[in-house]
Amino acid sequence: MYFSAMTRQELVQRIKTKKSYLCVGLDPDLSKIPAHLRSSKDPVYEFNMRIIDATREFCVAYKPNTAFYECLGIQGWECFEKTLRYIGSDHLTIADAKRGDMGNTATMYAKAFFEIYNADAITLNPYLGKDSIAPFLAYENKWSILLALTSNAGSMDFQLSEILHPVTGREEKLFEQVIHTSSQWAGPDQMMYVVGATHPDLLKHIREMIPEHFLLVPGVGAQGGDLQAISEAGLNSDCGLLVNSSRQIIYASSGKDFAQKAGEEAKKVQQEMEMLLETVLS
Amino acid sequence: MYFSAMTRQELVQRIKTKKSYLCVGLDPDLSKIPAHLRSSKDPVYEFNMRIIDATREFCVAYKPNTAFYECLGIQGWECFEKTLRYIGSDHLTIADAKRGDMGNTATMYAKAFFEIYNADAITLNPYLGKDSIAPFLAYENKWSILLALTSNAGSMDFQLSEILHPVTGREEKLFEQVIHTSSQWAGPDQMMYVVGATHPDLLKHIREMIPEHFLLVPGVGAQGGDLQAISEAGLNSDCGLLVNSSRQIIYASSGKDFAQKAGEEAKKVQQEMEMLLETVLS
Repeated sequence: MYFSAMTRQELVQRIKTKKSYLCVGLDPDLSKIPAHLRSSKDPVYEFNMRIIDATREFCVAYKPNTAFYECLGIQGWECFEKTLRYIGSDHLTIADAKRGDMGNTATMYAKAFFEIYNADAITLNPYLGKDSIAPFLAYENKWSILLALTSNAGSMDFQLSEILHPVTGREEKLFEQVIHTSSQWAGPDQMMYVVGATHPDLLKHIREMIPEHFLLVPGVGAQGGDLQAISEAGLNSDCGLLVNSSRQIIYASSGKDFAQKAGEEAKKVQQEMEMLLETVLS
Repeated sequence: MYFSAMTRQELVQRIKTKKSYLCVGLDPDLSKIPAHLRSSKDPVYEFNMRIIDATREFCVAYKPNTAFYECLGIQGWECFEKTLRYIGSDHLTIADAKRGDMGNTATMYAKAFFEIYNADAITLNPYLGKDSIAPFLAYENKWSILLALTSNAGSMDFQLSEILHPVTGREEKLFEQVIHTSSQWAGPDQMMYVVGATHPDLLKHIREMIPEHFLLVPGVGAQGGDLQAISEAGLNSDCGLLVNSSRQIIYASSGKDFAQKAGEEAKKVQQEMEMLLETVLS
């Protein structure tokens, strides 16, 4: 069986060639996709194919969130599988699954996403600790993207709690402890972190903590994050950022021109990224 | 569409009638199920049906862990769906999915597990905070079971970290903060907590923190937890415990007698539970 994979070097190369660090979030909500598609046999897959064709040129990664497929039952999983295949190997495919289970069970999730669905990367929840992440790290050239600081209101509930370090007695926030601890489990060629765009001040701080890691930043656009602020805070010499946009691109229009509008929207973001790569990294 | 549901009162009634608080973990690993089943069309479903038939009488709940189905691709999800249907409405069905995503996306997961697969309960990861749990609580008579303190080695990495309370300045562990905070989101008729059997001392402490909530306790048997210690620490006047056993029951034998042996093993646990219910609650 062929396992899709993308090394850090390959990812950086694609970013430099395309002058883009855009990740398109494929979160297709049946109630929001254009009416004229709904009569097709697999409306979500039809929608995804058209969005992918229109945006391919402008992005380096796609991130389907599994929830939007799971809620469609078996047909949703078929669509998820076909979508990953349709994206192909030129883009980093991120299964936004936020899985997290212990040892033996985590191995099953790793098998599901890295072998069966053949994604290049998966988002993971750190709450269960090292043995919940290790089975994913056992796959060379596949990526584990740990939730550190998410973009939602609930990120304030626990992620920002002040932890007292048992040895040093130093205070740090939970998301900082997650980063400090987990960045010892694997290097920046296998691990990335999710940092919500709604915390640009903390993004800068995280960049200082882990200068080399790629950060996957959702929350730009519909959720209110600002691309320029994020880029100034987070870019490093290898780019080091994947900025995700979902709704702003995939629902740019609800008419028959939805794909064209999605492409235009993606192009606009790419052009802003091209400018930011030039100015910030020069 | 009919939504399966089980109220707290119904659950307590079943426990009292059956004199059992056993939950059977349906985590079927293709490599471990009896060889003679492997040639059947859907070996995992075949295995599950036989295990369910043999253990039905002795348990009040079943907990299929989604990882073991996801790793089989589409066929695995078909099997998951059929398994939940086969269990029926006399047992609490717990989708051990450990999901956790924000607002809008959490709604999709709630729809998947509570409507499409029609589970009575789901396990949830608290790391993303309130808006990641709220959509599940919107379903009346469905259960949200939050991970508090898990049974694996990795539970030491973050769950036991000392948090400094921002207002009171009091120290508490992360899992305590999770329980304190989240137990204000819903009452003990909708929320349960996962507490690993490998922490019996902390189980007693958690029982004091939340005297009324049901606790789902995995880790008995193969993972080393002790049923008597757990029961003494965790039983309340409504029982208040669901103790899960997976491997010890479902792999009691790898021969043609696997179902019979699973039934015998489940019966043994039920009898121990009957005795504990009498002695501890008398």
